[in-house]
Amino acid sequence: MERVDDLQLKGLKIIQNPKGFCFGIDAVLLANHVKLKPADRVVDLGTGTGIIPLLLAGKSRTCTFQGLELQEAVCNMAKRSVALNHLQERIEILQGDIKGAADLFPKSVYDVVTANPPYMHSKGLINPGDAKAVSRHEVACDLEDVVRAASLLLRTHGRFYMIHRPNRMVDIMYLMRKFSLEPKVLTMIQPKRDKAPNLLIVEGKKGAKVELKINRPLIIYEDDGTYTKETLALYHQEDLEG
Amino acid sequence: MERVDDLQLKGLKIIQNPKGFCFGIDAVLLANHVKLKPADRVVDLGTGTGIIPLLLAGKSRTCTFQGLELQEAVCNMAKRSVALNHLQERIEILQGDIKGAADLFPKSVYDVVTANPPYMHSKGLINPGDAKAVSRHEVACDLEDVVRAASLLLRTHGRFYMIHRPNRMVDIMYLMRKFSLEPKVLTMIQPKRDKAPNLLIVEGKKGAKVELKINRPLIIYEDDGTYTKETLALYHQEDLEG
Repeated sequence: MERVDDLQLKGLKIIQNPKGFCFGIDAVLLANHVKLKPADRVVDLGTGTGIIPLLLAGKSRTCTFQGLELQEAVCNMAKRSVALNHLQERIEILQGDIKGAADLFPKSVYDVVTANPPYMHSKGLINPGDAKAVSRHEVACDLEDVVRAASLLLRTHGRFYMIHRPNRMVDIMYLMRKFSLEPKVLTMIQPKRDKAPNLLIVEGKKGAKVELKINRPLIIYEDDGTYTKETLALYHQEDLEG
Repeated sequence: MERVDDLQLKGLKIIQNPKGFCFGIDAVLLANHVKLKPADRVVDLGTGTGIIPLLLAGKSRTCTFQGLELQEAVCNMAKRSVALNHLQERIEILQGDIKGAADLFPKSVYDVVTANPPYMHSKGLINPGDAKAVSRHEVACDLEDVVRAASLLLRTHGRFYMIHRPNRMVDIMYLMRKFSLEPKVLTMIQPKRDKAPNLLIVEGKKGAKVELKINRPLIIYEDDGTYTKETLALYHQEDLEG
């Protein structure tokens, strides 16, 4: 059922179950928007198979990562991927609930929190017990739980990076301000030049002053379906540790 | 000091003072994003020389408009423009303060409220007595005053249309939700294809359910500085009354 996929980054590999939830373009986009500083302490909320800590560890030298995942089987896959890549010194995977993050981690100390949370409301969900559903729908936690947890863990001026859907943007802005994670940078992501955005990445800063910078939209594909130059440049970033 | 400009729309004209505040592309963009229905009652908050009611009257048949303007001299110009265009039956200009809008207008009855408010904070302003400054800076009213007034005047499911700067987007989303004007449609406006947005237009609906649609960005100019086809098509809309 499981397979080992090559991450095309310094020989890194990831264990995934093709019948479960495999990482997508959104995890790769999010990881490549994170700005790291030497020795940053990073938490990834809802880490799944650990794709974001793995990519960030591959693209940094001195930062350390903790990934929190609710589902036991997925969590075990993430732990085995960390061991497979000999990254136990830099990545720790914990099983637990985002709603209890403040009991699992020290508060107000982290430099960076990342999240690629479930995008969809849980209303109308057919099978909430299914692992894929928990990764995609707000069954186990909702957007407010994620933003609250990020705010609790971050130090003052710590950075929060999240990828989500544009139709949730008002919720995102409202909740981030409510929990003192002022949105500072927003990038809308369009599949093609003449399409509406289908993803957004927001960078917030705990306790920062009000002022949002909106980047020009990131266009993923050329009209012929190949990646744009800007997407390739983003993916091929070698070192995010500024 | 004053001059009469042709609006290039069904012979409509507007009186402006080139040393004061002349309407810009933002007023024209906003007007052309407004969706009207037959016999809609519309208020324009901070109407200036009346550009938005004039354009909307020219692009509709049965809707009626009221424009609220604080500054007496500007208000008088707007009134004279209405008379010059023989639109007294459809447009009324009132002098008054947005902060007192609930005393000047009936509450919870309007179908549409429009606003092209001052974009800039009043901090560091050199001459707050200057008419241009009052139009551009939050001297006389701030964003919260505008959103609160719009919410008071609109009926349930009445629509609010505002153009503003992207760096204020978090404030806009936060305040609109706070005052029950749920943002429903957002259009980011980019001067050129490869530039970051410098304007946004938001449509909110009083008491509506949560769900934001983000359009593809509107690009104003081609690389050679001519208007794009989509901008020309928008400007040349003849009838906004759907």
